[in-house]
Amino acid sequence: MTGVKKKKNAPKKPRSKSEVLSDISEIEQQISHVTQELQAKVNQFELLIEFSKILGSTLDSKVIKENALEATCQLVGCETASIFLVDKASGELYWETALGEEGKKLQKIIRLPIDNQSIAGYVAMTGESSIVNDTQKDIRHSKKTKGESKFQTKNMLSVPLKVKGKVVGVLQALNKLQCYPERPLGKAGCPDFYVEDLKLLESLSFQVASAIENALLYEQLKIGLYDTCEALAESIEKKDHFTGGHSKRVVHYSMCVAKYMDLSEEELERVRIAAILHDIGKIGIEDKILKKAAPLDQYEWPIMKTHPQLGYEIMKRVGFLSDVTPGMLYHHERWDGKGYPKGLKGEEIPMIARVIAVADTYDAMISSRPYREGLDPQFSYDEIVKNSGKQFCPQVVKAFMQAFVHEKMNQKTKKAAS
Amino acid sequence: MTGVKKKKNAPKKPRSKSEVLSDISEIEQQISHVTQELQAKVNQFELLIEFSKILGSTLDSKVIKENALEATCQLVGCETASIFLVDKASGELYWETALGEEGKKLQKIIRLPIDNQSIAGYVAMTGESSIVNDTQKDIRHSKKTKGESKFQTKNMLSVPLKVKGKVVGVLQALNKLQCYPERPLGKAGCPDFYVEDLKLLESLSFQVASAIENALLYEQLKIGLYDTCEALAESIEKKDHFTGGHSKRVVHYSMCVAKYMDLSEEELERVRIAAILHDIGKIGIEDKILKKAAPLDQYEWPIMKTHPQLGYEIMKRVGFLSDVTPGMLYHHERWDGKGYPKGLKGEEIPMIARVIAVADTYDAMISSRPYREGLDPQFSYDEIVKNSGKQFCPQVVKAFMQAFVHEKMNQKTKKAAS
Repeated sequence: MTGVKKKKNAPKKPRSKSEVLSDISEIEQQISHVTQELQAKVNQFELLIEFSKILGSTLDSKVIKENALEATCQLVGCETASIFLVDKASGELYWETALGEEGKKLQKIIRLPIDNQSIAGYVAMTGESSIVNDTQKDIRHSKKTKGESKFQTKNMLSVPLKVKGKVVGVLQALNKLQCYPERPLGKAGCPDFYVEDLKLLESLSFQVASAIENALLYEQLKIGLYDTCEALAESIEKKDHFTGGHSKRVVHYSMCVAKYMDLSEEELERVRIAAILHDIGKIGIEDKILKKAAPLDQYEWPIMKTHPQLGYEIMKRVGFLSDVTPGMLYHHERWDGKGYPKGLKGEEIPMIARVIAVADTYDAMISSRPYREGLDPQFSYDEIVKNSGKQFCPQVVKAFMQAFVHEKMNQKTKKAAS
Repeated sequence: MTGVKKKKNAPKKPRSKSEVLSDISEIEQQISHVTQELQAKVNQFELLIEFSKILGSTLDSKVIKENALEATCQLVGCETASIFLVDKASGELYWETALGEEGKKLQKIIRLPIDNQSIAGYVAMTGESSIVNDTQKDIRHSKKTKGESKFQTKNMLSVPLKVKGKVVGVLQALNKLQCYPERPLGKAGCPDFYVEDLKLLESLSFQVASAIENALLYEQLKIGLYDTCEALAESIEKKDHFTGGHSKRVVHYSMCVAKYMDLSEEELERVRIAAILHDIGKIGIEDKILKKAAPLDQYEWPIMKTHPQLGYEIMKRVGFLSDVTPGMLYHHERWDGKGYPKGLKGEEIPMIARVIAVADTYDAMISSRPYREGLDPQFSYDEIVKNSGKQFCPQVVKAFMQAFVHEKMNQKTKKAAS
């Protein structure tokens, strides 16, 4: 609303017609100016709200970061943008991501200490936003980032990313392209960044920081759940040191195979967790059977074969894993219906279980036991292929064949998944 | 910008001075109108951005819902607001939360089917927003919700909460209080809701839906991690059916005690997970020792006493639990330094471990073993209190004494934590 002078007293003082007409023209100009200014502000707000929606609608940190960069470029009108995040372990900033073709070239691991030797480092250190309108002449402009690309940073607007008052990163807008109201080019040969750009980017930065933080919390928790399952699965394997590392290798082979199948991110996640937990039921098998350094006899086998059911009984109460537990329960079923515990057939067997069945059998074949040497990978491969449509799902065997060639699965090693 | 007529041609056509003066007055009115309208819009945008920031800054669903209601009342200017969420299991809507004193009275469990028999049900069914400006005359206005309070719903604006196009709930604004531009009172005796209120609430609803969804995903994952730990802890206990339910009871007693200490939400969370996992190291103890139906001898005890270290070794690699594992490792340390595995003393012992030590000992005392009956709760209580400053941290014992009185811990039951 700035710029509009109210002329309430005008009619009281007699004025000439030309004066009045000139007043009208002036008022018209002012209206035009004010409405344009307000419209620009409304447009920016709409853009900001649109990007808040997008940023808040996912817990995928990659999607959030890409949208944050896109939003930065559109909001302040600049050539490209970048995000640095604070590495909590080292206390350094790392170049997380940058936009556009030039940005991709810069996506190497650039690390900057949090100090006054770089612009991003300074912003992270002080927690204050900064405009540098002639970056090339600023001695803090990092030589490190300069040398990495032909991209010339002319000017730079940097705002801190803060969560609960703590700096977690820095968001930068690089090379201003246009501005409203129009202003002359700055020293760097492009329009300068102004304080209104800074305010606008600060508005966005709060939402970017929150969205990234939420996504990281979610991802850490997911890793926490997976690591916990892995730790416990391995602790059970320790009892039988001849199968040590088996669950981890079954995860590795399962994921190799799943890569060549048409599975969603969620399904891949389920395969991974079911694979790590597939033998967890062995926790309920007596030591003397589990630790036996010889083939099991006719009395021991039926007990050992209860482990899929036992594992299912343990985990079925975990509501969060309701799509995972069938993968554990049915990993010893066979495509031809001759497996256990239920004798399911063909597509009655959940896909996760069919994938784990192949991975589990393959690892069991190539691994050594106290009473026999591990089989040759190529021989084991041939056995799996031969059993397509009998023991194994043909679709999974097809994916296994592709994985065998492309994923270096033909190496007989206990460290496959390390 | 509506309402401003451009008068570019005015100077070309000769007009009287009074005509021109009248024009000026008209233009001034228009300026005033337009700027007020735009200013109102800018204010709404600012409010919307402010609330997006708040909604996006947490993964706590309670905080999100409260803020969503506050935002609804402020944005559309209404007396109160409420949220219904879809119960995925039953497919019904449940009254999640409502604002203000009247809202609190309504916070009973009201459930509505998703159909055209209620306004909220209809909005959830169609996925379309709805304005009902005379609620009392709308036959869909649920008798169920009507009967619950003296609160009179005059009119109602309902928008669906959608995530990826799917309705997950309904957000309602109740009883419009003011509006801009001002309008006459509607049939219900208060200003009507207009389509601009609807548009505004729809803008907010997207962010509310996303924030609630993210929070629920996070909470489900957290419950998933906890349930997984619990399931595995219990599967180990199954080996020794005399201690069945012990870990769950230690969680229960630990949380009862922790309630009377000055711990943060995060610390309480850590106590809970450490308590459920505290005996997980027993996974590595041989069956013949673990399952022994008699007191352990001098050779067996040292082996049994490795379980805190074993548990720590299993879980220490889980980065997410780095603040939890010390609670497992040190739960058999004593305040006077005579415990194991490290012989830590006093405040060297992490607080979580000191809490678990009391809860663990209390449950061990009152539980029956094959070779002895469980001790009397009051006797066990006296023993714990007597050992304050010797075996146990005095601060924890003080909290235990409060919990014993207020939390019904003096009941000798295996079902304490069920």
